[in-house]
Amino acid sequence: MDQIKKGYFSEKNDLWPGQCFSLEVKEVLHHEKSDFQDIVVLKTKNHGRALILDGIIQCTEHDEFAYQEMISFLPLCAHENPLKVLIVGGGDGGVAREVSKHPNVREIVQVEIDKKVIDVSKQYLPFMSLGFSSPKLALKICDGFEYMRKHKNEFDVIITDSSDPIGPAVNLFTTSYFQLLKEALKPNGIVCSQAGTVWSQLAHVQDTLTNCRRHFGTVKYAVASVPTYPTGQIGFVIGALESNANLDVPKFKFSEEEVDTLRLRYYNEKLHTASFVLPNFAKKILDT
Amino acid sequence: MDQIKKGYFSEKNDLWPGQCFSLEVKEVLHHEKSDFQDIVVLKTKNHGRALILDGIIQCTEHDEFAYQEMISFLPLCAHENPLKVLIVGGGDGGVAREVSKHPNVREIVQVEIDKKVIDVSKQYLPFMSLGFSSPKLALKICDGFEYMRKHKNEFDVIITDSSDPIGPAVNLFTTSYFQLLKEALKPNGIVCSQAGTVWSQLAHVQDTLTNCRRHFGTVKYAVASVPTYPTGQIGFVIGALESNANLDVPKFKFSEEEVDTLRLRYYNEKLHTASFVLPNFAKKILDT
Repeated sequence: MDQIKKGYFSEKNDLWPGQCFSLEVKEVLHHEKSDFQDIVVLKTKNHGRALILDGIIQCTEHDEFAYQEMISFLPLCAHENPLKVLIVGGGDGGVAREVSKHPNVREIVQVEIDKKVIDVSKQYLPFMSLGFSSPKLALKICDGFEYMRKHKNEFDVIITDSSDPIGPAVNLFTTSYFQLLKEALKPNGIVCSQAGTVWSQLAHVQDTLTNCRRHFGTVKYAVASVPTYPTGQIGFVIGALESNANLDVPKFKFSEEEVDTLRLRYYNEKLHTASFVLPNFAKKILDT
Repeated sequence: MDQIKKGYFSEKNDLWPGQCFSLEVKEVLHHEKSDFQDIVVLKTKNHGRALILDGIIQCTEHDEFAYQEMISFLPLCAHENPLKVLIVGGGDGGVAREVSKHPNVREIVQVEIDKKVIDVSKQYLPFMSLGFSSPKLALKICDGFEYMRKHKNEFDVIITDSSDPIGPAVNLFTTSYFQLLKEALKPNGIVCSQAGTVWSQLAHVQDTLTNCRRHFGTVKYAVASVPTYPTGQIGFVIGALESNANLDVPKFKFSEEEVDTLRLRYYNEKLHTASFVLPNFAKKILDT
């Protein structure tokens, strides 16, 4: 763990040059190299437990709900009736935890390429891996590309919960990936993928939107505030097969009671719409 | 400069425990201790020039526009006709730069307690200190409290652009400060102050809102994304003398042409409204 020095884990990466975010570490709970990536679990001083893949913070107990709720409920609530959902990646279980909360969802398939991430989450990150115990979920250890090639016209919503576009996730931002997503969807289907931040990766966000627009009728970009991600926010590309879909107006609305009982700590109806509103510098480039 | 090690400036502070943001430094352009605070200007590798006061990043060339535009245009555009504006603090000139762009504003008074910050900004941060050259501006070197005690019923909008609630700015978050603000306002006046982040200082934000509510009829909290601030965002408390004021609906709207000619890189009409929408965990506590 050469990224831990003097009690701090530091996340340097060429994807966000000239800056570095650090977390104070109480204990390294786990460290292994899987066939796909380097996996670390930290017990931090003020952010609970943290999952690190290939040196990059994937989630901390302190703020993971913002990401998981938004990548799940933006596409789910924009859909008329999301009965069957595919999750690609998401090996920590957090997205499965959120998707299973949606009352309309009957069936969730999750395909994760790296079984070790699931095992590690089950052992050290129970607040996320509880998603794997949903009776709605069928969990498959395989490659998302392979799976979708064999499953056409099957899903209402597909969520790609990937790491950044280096390492095992590099192919999840390409035109051919969005084509596969399109073919795996039922009519009126919607996809949502992690898509980086406009503050340090604007050209990459633009590329991902362009790739998505080649296959989808409506494509938008939305953001969530996640303090432990680089630049303090993360974006999502959301694509609908339909043209002129109103992705920023939720078709399904949680009641105030549901917000409480389902423990929605971040997502709400107004925030759904607000998350699509971009500052001028990003709006101009992304044309959304 | 014991905060610079191995080419990185690191910002540790008890206001955001267990985490640390660092900027890669090319050169320390300036370092002095004024009567009020420690002042540093850095040339960074990827964020342009950065102003550091008492070890805390105040602004970087890369993202300062988000903060300056929002703290200025949220109150200005929520006001029917902001003819006369007071800026308390803001020694770098960035807020004066933005306030002077508003077509209705005729007269700006700025009171900054630390002349050294102004001098340093004029020398090293011309992209912000250009605000001081506005013909609308009268710049005064004095204490904001003292100034307002002698100027009652005078301003349409008062913006408090302070550092965090430690050091010279500690009194700018108290009940007595909001009382002074109230008395310095004309009827229908609006105030806006920097108010910390809900991710690491939720109790402090709550206190500031409570203090503001003792004197103002309508009080709201809004956020802006600023990557180089702790947790990647900053909040503003906005108070109107009027009860039931619609602070989240701008009364003044910039045309698309104005957005371009005035170089608004962040603020727009939709973002004004969206910035008041909070995630559930913050909404519950702040009751806005």
